[in-house]
Amino acid sequence: MFEARIFTLYPDLYPGPLGEGLYGKALNEKKWNLEIVNIRDSAKDKHKTVDDAPYGGGSGMLIRPDVIANSLDQKINPDEKVIYLSPKGKLFNQDVAKELSKKKKLNLICGHFEGIDQRVIDTRNIEELSIGDFILSGGETAAFVVLDVILRLLPGVIGNKNSVVEETFENGLLEYPQYTKPQVWEEKTVPEVLLSGDHSKIKDWRLSKSEAITRDRRPDMWQKYKKN
Amino acid sequence: MFEARIFTLYPDLYPGPLGEGLYGKALNEKKWNLEIVNIRDSAKDKHKTVDDAPYGGGSGMLIRPDVIANSLDQKINPDEKVIYLSPKGKLFNQDVAKELSKKKKLNLICGHFEGIDQRVIDTRNIEELSIGDFILSGGETAAFVVLDVILRLLPGVIGNKNSVVEETFENGLLEYPQYTKPQVWEEKTVPEVLLSGDHSKIKDWRLSKSEAITRDRRPDMWQKYKKN
Repeated sequence: MFEARIFTLYPDLYPGPLGEGLYGKALNEKKWNLEIVNIRDSAKDKHKTVDDAPYGGGSGMLIRPDVIANSLDQKINPDEKVIYLSPKGKLFNQDVAKELSKKKKLNLICGHFEGIDQRVIDTRNIEELSIGDFILSGGETAAFVVLDVILRLLPGVIGNKNSVVEETFENGLLEYPQYTKPQVWEEKTVPEVLLSGDHSKIKDWRLSKSEAITRDRRPDMWQKYKKN
Repeated sequence: MFEARIFTLYPDLYPGPLGEGLYGKALNEKKWNLEIVNIRDSAKDKHKTVDDAPYGGGSGMLIRPDVIANSLDQKINPDEKVIYLSPKGKLFNQDVAKELSKKKKLNLICGHFEGIDQRVIDTRNIEELSIGDFILSGGETAAFVVLDVILRLLPGVIGNKNSVVEETFENGLLEYPQYTKPQVWEEKTVPEVLLSGDHSKIKDWRLSKSEAITRDRRPDMWQKYKKN
């Protein structure tokens, strides 16, 4: 069973979207598990202080190394994967998600505002992972995203109803346009080829659409695709 | 005032993280507003059906164009920005967030599973936006992320306590390591330069660390930085 553990200052946010729909059903059926650890429980003073100002100046507050290390050390075994969600991390993508989905235990640390003290990252075998080139108030919404992507990939979670066919990114292209009923809507019909029943033609049409969309919207992906 | 409107099949997920901490406080103080629209309310049959199978074959279900258009048309004025969160969209980043944070009204459409019918996207002046190269179960967690990034940028939301200094991405580099109290922790002291009080030296040290981290982790960003 895949087990996720989230270290956060906002424990009440979970499971949130991870407890809804098929993910919530799978959680109840013990197809995966979620443990939430409140970092603040490891603060030692009577005010439960977790953060302090950065050395060298700068705005915002950082989570203290002693507090967060105490929180991690109580829970994590040495062989477990530990990720700190941070904009300076390696970029998260579908391939990274596939690797992470094979882990038995995945620990996600959510910093808040300016982040956590670097010494914890250096001493606790922590990998930094970023979901994109933007700045969040904390790792909490990033943790939702990372687990959303991973849960889709776990056996038996989405089931037959919505099988995990990853056409987007799988072939290095963005997905083609999709159409459903009604066949004619506001005088617009769905592209004729999709009604033809000719699977080979449909496949060709979809590939050409995927290529056009990728070329137009993601020159970075398009360059890589052309090389391969 | 910045007003966000989210179209979703999971209205109960909101405000979630957007209602916590400083964001929740700002919401109560009407520094921003959040309206949630349940797409299912626009379904017309007695079973409240919103989705159907894709034409041309393929797994998963798509939201019907009539249902979602009905939902949008009841709420959105023609001059409002409308975004559909989709992996085939343009990539979201800090610059896009800055632009969006200047809008008066921002509409975010969350698809679920395979997405929405292309004809709605084509006819309703909808821009597709992707938060990264991975596949979510729906747009809900992406909407959290997009709004988290935008809310940080709104005047008066984060306040003096955590000013919006965006060193990461602002200069095209990842952020330098940060340190806080205690000064010595597990026999490791914070880098001496940060204790020196010499702001010019600190700035140089941070820049060199930022450059090293970016070169190591994000060759794509590093190439762009070197060009400028």
